[in-house]
Amino acid sequence: MRNLAIIGLGLIGGSIALEARQKGFAKNIIGVDQNAEHQQKALDLKLVDVCLDLEDMLATAPDLIILAIPVSAIQRLLPSLLDVLPEKSYVLDTGSTKSAICAQVAAHPNRQRFIAGHPIAGTEFSGPEAAHFGLFSAKNFIFCEVERSAEQGLRYCRELMEAIGAKAIQMDAENHDTHLAYISHLSHVSSFMLGQTVLDIEKDNKAIFQLAGSGFASTVRLAKSSPDMWAPIFMQNASILGAALQEYIIQLQQFQHALIKRDEARIKDMLLAANKIKQVLPDTQEKVIETKKSNHNEHHFSIH
Amino acid sequence: MRNLAIIGLGLIGGSIALEARQKGFAKNIIGVDQNAEHQQKALDLKLVDVCLDLEDMLATAPDLIILAIPVSAIQRLLPSLLDVLPEKSYVLDTGSTKSAICAQVAAHPNRQRFIAGHPIAGTEFSGPEAAHFGLFSAKNFIFCEVERSAEQGLRYCRELMEAIGAKAIQMDAENHDTHLAYISHLSHVSSFMLGQTVLDIEKDNKAIFQLAGSGFASTVRLAKSSPDMWAPIFMQNASILGAALQEYIIQLQQFQHALIKRDEARIKDMLLAANKIKQVLPDTQEKVIETKKSNHNEHHFSIH
Repeated sequence: MRNLAIIGLGLIGGSIALEARQKGFAKNIIGVDQNAEHQQKALDLKLVDVCLDLEDMLATAPDLIILAIPVSAIQRLLPSLLDVLPEKSYVLDTGSTKSAICAQVAAHPNRQRFIAGHPIAGTEFSGPEAAHFGLFSAKNFIFCEVERSAEQGLRYCRELMEAIGAKAIQMDAENHDTHLAYISHLSHVSSFMLGQTVLDIEKDNKAIFQLAGSGFASTVRLAKSSPDMWAPIFMQNASILGAALQEYIIQLQQFQHALIKRDEARIKDMLLAANKIKQVLPDTQEKVIETKKSNHNEHHFSIH
Repeated sequence: MRNLAIIGLGLIGGSIALEARQKGFAKNIIGVDQNAEHQQKALDLKLVDVCLDLEDMLATAPDLIILAIPVSAIQRLLPSLLDVLPEKSYVLDTGSTKSAICAQVAAHPNRQRFIAGHPIAGTEFSGPEAAHFGLFSAKNFIFCEVERSAEQGLRYCRELMEAIGAKAIQMDAENHDTHLAYISHLSHVSSFMLGQTVLDIEKDNKAIFQLAGSGFASTVRLAKSSPDMWAPIFMQNASILGAALQEYIIQLQQFQHALIKRDEARIKDMLLAANKIKQVLPDTQEKVIETKKSNHNEHHFSIH
């Protein structure tokens, strides 16, 4: 049983707290959150045992401190946190960008007590009430620059992965940011802007709701995500995301060109090519079955 | 109990067949499908009682013939079908575009025996094996130009709505196509091209699968949809969809401009504005509750 502190009591921090306690990773969990309302909700929901300010939390010298706050706040806080980190404490972050955060503390004397992490899990909801069991179950948790982190800190992370049911994956920070730009960040931009396009045109909101099928709901779901979380992610990954977005815009323009030319054969070819996503991304139903299977024999971790 | 024939034994046609039989709308269901494999599957799955060719089906003079085939095939087949329609038969289509189809038969002497319809229901799957119960439950079924259809045909449609649990909505054909361009067709283009963008870049397919979270799966789900169904829809709604797509591309370019300028405040404003989609599109969880509630007291139809 470890002493755990979580900075940021939202969807990610709150869900980690739930699993960490239930699976016996941590007995006492200290919460830190600038938002007094979130503190109270986290206590009401029994996500954490107590809420302290940063200084008082550090005075308890937790084994592991998890940062589950916007990536801009991680980048700002992390250096000063490492400055005053109690001797036996380690810090794990959960930000959706890794290059900027790793660069920020690359030369810090306590670099080895930081572990750079990112769980590939989330929903469009935010805040303590969005926390729930199972969020990380059979999901990937990416660790970057593990060779720069001390073994004791990685051991805590392996235990935590076991507790939350996630699978540890190693990747270098730049690779992480490139992959995430295409696999996650671009999806969010696509969805936010689709939502805006439809809002702009359909002034009659009732009509949107009345006619919206499950397809629209699915593609626009991410447009409900938290701007506080996502604006900083887009900024920190601006170069790579900008290139990905340019590719996406060109694809849409090529489609539009075929549409203007009424070139049905070309459009059909484009759709057939996009259909290949089936081969790399299994159907949801299959995914559920896979998840069930993998629960039995997983929980082996590759970080040493 | 009506005599029902369904042309096109895929997701939509097959799902209508399942409900129509179970809820007692139809006793005998005749299937028509050009694809011999689909015919066999539809028989194996007991979607239909028998498969006939078009001529033999017409010889049985069904009360209602449902067209559940690509919109291009509806446009091609409908005039000749109305030419030879048995005296007491009516035709309902289910295509995702309505203006072109209605225009095609506007001057046909049997126009009043055609009912223009479109169920706002579907999944990314296709073929007879995609058919399932509950597809239309509490979903909207749009009817266009009902004033041009005979009362007897509309009566069959009301009975069918009752059987499949759908809610009838009236709308003029041009309005339908405009709304659907934004609410459904644009979502499909957005998703198809997002899939293509990621496929183009991520040559290492394993990495896509490994890192794809539920967000990506959600936005790219529609890219698995049938090109045979969707290319004709995009063509028939090319003018309106082209305008919607242009708006979408401009939104993405504005986002890209803010990203290049590293203008975090502007990006956050854009995300906050897009967040308003929450107010018109409820969360999935809420939707489920609503669906359950509405099952008890719905089934009132507004088409007369």
